[in-house]
Amino acid sequence: MIEGLYRRGLLGIADTPAVADFVKSQGWKLGVGRFVAGETLEDVLRAVRALHQEGLSSILDLLGEFIDTEAGAEAMTNEVLRTLDTLAQEDTERYMSVKPTQLGLGVSFELALYNARRVAERAAEVGARVCLDMENVPYVDGTLNLLRTLYGEGHHHLSTVLQSYLYRSMGDLEALLTLEPKPAIRIVKGAYRESEAVAFQDKRQVDDNYREMLYRGLEAGAHIGVATHDESIIRETEAFVRGAKAKNYEFQLLYGVKPSLQRALAARGHKVRIYIPYGEDWYGYFSRRLAERPANLAFVLRGLLG
Amino acid sequence: MIEGLYRRGLLGIADTPAVADFVKSQGWKLGVGRFVAGETLEDVLRAVRALHQEGLSSILDLLGEFIDTEAGAEAMTNEVLRTLDTLAQEDTERYMSVKPTQLGLGVSFELALYNARRVAERAAEVGARVCLDMENVPYVDGTLNLLRTLYGEGHHHLSTVLQSYLYRSMGDLEALLTLEPKPAIRIVKGAYRESEAVAFQDKRQVDDNYREMLYRGLEAGAHIGVATHDESIIRETEAFVRGAKAKNYEFQLLYGVKPSLQRALAARGHKVRIYIPYGEDWYGYFSRRLAERPANLAFVLRGLLG
Ligand SMILES: Cc1cc2nc3c(=O)[nH]c(=O)nc-3n(C[C@H](O)[C@H](O)[C@H](O)COP(=O)(O)OP(=O)(O)OC[C@H]3O[C@@H](n4cnc5c(N)ncnc54)[C@H](O)[C@@H]3O)c2cc1C
Ligand SMILES: Cc1cc2nc3c(=O)[nH]c(=O)nc-3n(C[C@H](O)[C@H](O)[C@H](O)COP(=O)(O)OP(=O)(O)OC[C@H]3O[C@@H](n4cnc5c(N)ncnc54)[C@H](O)[C@@H]3O)c2cc1C
Repeated sequence: MIEGLYRRGLLGIADTPAVADFVKSQGWKLGVGRFVAGETLEDVLRAVRALHQEGLSSILDLLGEFIDTEAGAEAMTNEVLRTLDTLAQEDTERYMSVKPTQLGLGVSFELALYNARRVAERAAEVGARVCLDMENVPYVDGTLNLLRTLYGEGHHHLSTVLQSYLYRSMGDLEALLTLEPKPAIRIVKGAYRESEAVAFQDKRQVDDNYREMLYRGLEAGAHIGVATHDESIIRETEAFVRGAKAKNYEFQLLYGVKPSLQRALAARGHKVRIYIPYGEDWYGYFSRRLAERPANLAFVLRGLLG
Repeated sequence: MIEGLYRRGLLGIADTPAVADFVKSQGWKLGVGRFVAGETLEDVLRAVRALHQEGLSSILDLLGEFIDTEAGAEAMTNEVLRTLDTLAQEDTERYMSVKPTQLGLGVSFELALYNARRVAERAAEVGARVCLDMENVPYVDGTLNLLRTLYGEGHHHLSTVLQSYLYRSMGDLEALLTLEPKPAIRIVKGAYRESEAVAFQDKRQVDDNYREMLYRGLEAGAHIGVATHDESIIRETEAFVRGAKAKNYEFQLLYGVKPSLQRALAARGHKVRIYIPYGEDWYGYFSRRLAERPANLAFVLRGLLG
C-alpha cells in the first residue's frame, strides 16, 4: 500500500513543470544513464553489443511519448525507420519496441495505422521484429486494433503488450490467442496510474493476474515475453517452464534494473532480453523508473546532493 | 541465521531433563493438542474423519522415538500392527508413517528388518501404505536398506523420506530412482540438528537442494510427497506441476501447521495429506515443532503464563 502511494505520489510530482524542468536540466548527472543507454542510436548500439557479449539479447526503445501532432508523429516514425535501417547492418538481433503514440495514435487511428504499416514493412525488409508497447488506457483498444489489422496483413513479426493490472487484459489475451499463427505477447504488470474503475489496485491481484495470464499464454502455445523484475514470479516461471519443457518464452528486464539477476537467468539457460531505452526524450521513462522504487529516488538524490 | 540459532537453542533446552519433565507434566495445557491429535488411536481417527470431510487426506504417525531395547521395539511394533488392524475398518485412506527406531533400528538392523517386514505384510493384508520416516544421520543407511530390501521383496506400498539438508540426499534420490516401479518418496528439509560435516547449514542451500530433488524426482516419474510449509517452494511446485501436467505428487503438511493453507491447496485441486501424530510419547515431536518457529513457543508460553 505504501509502495502504491509512493509510486502515485512520485508520478504526480514528476508531472509538475518545475520539477520536470529541473530534472531535465540536471540530466545525466542525476544518474539517468543507469536506466537509459544514451541519447543517440550509436550509444545504444554500443550497449547492445556489450550485452550480446554477456549472452543477453536486446530490444531497443526509442524514447518519446504522447506525440499529439501529425508532424511530431512523422518525425518519430522517421527516427524509427532510421533505427531499423541502422540495425540492418548489425550482427545482433534486430528488435525494436515502439509506442503507438509515437506513430500518431494520439492524433488518429488512421495516422497510426499508416505509420505502423510503414514500420512493419521496413522491419520485414531488414529482418527485424517490432513490439507495440502498451500505453495508458485510452490507447489500449487502438493498439490492439493496430496489431490485429497488421497481423492480418501478414505482419507476423509484430507483437504487443498486455498489462496484468487491467481488468480487461485476460479477455484481451484470449482474443489474441485466436490469431494464427499464435502471436508473441509481452506480459507486464503495467506502468501507468490507472483508476480502480479499470485496474486492480491491490498488488496481489495484479501479481496473481500476471501469473494466470502468463500460464494461459504459454499453455496456449503463444510466445510469451515474461517482462518483470519480480523474483517470485520469475522463480515460479522457471518452475513452470521446467515442468512444461517449454521453450516459447523469454524473460525481459529493463536496462539497469537487477543486472546480476539478468546474468544469473541467462546463466541458468533462459533467453533474457534487455529493454534498452535511448533518446533525448527520456524524462517520462526516467520518472516511472524512479517511481517504481524509493531506493532509486534515494540513489538520484544522493547524486544530486553529494 | 537467527532462526537456526533459535532452533538449535530450543532443541538443546528441550533435551534438558528438568525442562522435559516440566513440559510433560503440564501436557495438554501447553497447547500440545494443536500439533498432536490426541493420545489414543480413537482420538486420531476422529481427526482423520474430520479432515476427510474437508477434502484432506491423512497419514498417521504413532509417536515414539529412540527405542533402544528389543522389548520396547516389540511393544511399538505391536502398537503399529494394532493401528493397521483398526484402520482396516475405516472408510478413509489407510496410511501410516513409522520411525525405524520404533521397529528396533537402534538395537540392530536385523531386528528392525524383522519388525518392518511384519508391518509391511500386515499393511499389505489390510490395504494400507507405510512410510518409513527418516530420523537422524546414524539411521539413514539402515532406513534406506530397510526400504530397498522390503521393496525388493515386493512391498511396493512402502515408501521413505529424504532430507534436503543432507549432502548425501541427492545421491540417495538417484539410487531410489533406479527401483522399479518408481517408488513414492517424501521430500523434507530435515528436522534434526546435524553438523556441517554432513548437512547444509545455510537455509538457502537446504531450500535449493529441496527444489532440485523435488523436480528431479517428478521428472523421473517417482511419486513425490512435497512435505513442507514453505510457501515459496509450494508456489513454485504448483507452477511446475501445472507446466508438467503432473499428477504424481501430493503436498504433505503437519497437523495444526498452516491449516488455511492446507485447505487453500486442496481447494486449488491439489492432493493434500495431513501428517497426524498421536500417542503418549509426544515430547520430542512437540519440541521440534516449537523449535521451528519462535511464535509457536510464544503461543505455548502464553498458555503457560496466562
Ligand atoms: C521489458 C519490459 C517492457 C515493458 N513494457 C511495458 C509496456 O509496454 N507498458 C507498460 O505499461 N509497462 C511496461 N513495462 C513496465 C511494467 O509494467 C512495470 O511497470 C515494471 O516492469 C515494474 O514492475 P515489475 O513487474 O518489475 O514488478 P514490481 O512489483 O514493480 O517490482 C518487482 C521487484 O523488482 C524491483 N523493481 C521494479 N522496478 C524497479 C526499478 N525500476 N528499479 C529497481 N528495482 C525495481 C522492485 O523493487 C521489486 O523488488 C515493461 C517492463 C519491462 C521489463
Ligand atoms: C508431512 C511431513 C513429514 C515429515 N517427515 C519428516 C521426516 O521423516 N524426517 C525429518 O527429518 N523431518 C520430517 N519432517 C519435518 C521437516 O524436515 C521440517 O523440519 C519441517 O517440515 C519444517 O520445515 P519446512 O519445510 O516447513 O520449512 P521451514 O523453512 O522450516 O518453514 C517454512 C515456513 O513454514 C513455517 N513453519 C514451519 N514449521 C512450522 C511450525 N511447526 N509451526 C508453524 N509454522 C511453521 C515457517 O515459519 C515458515 O514460514 C516432515 C514434515 C512434514 C510436513
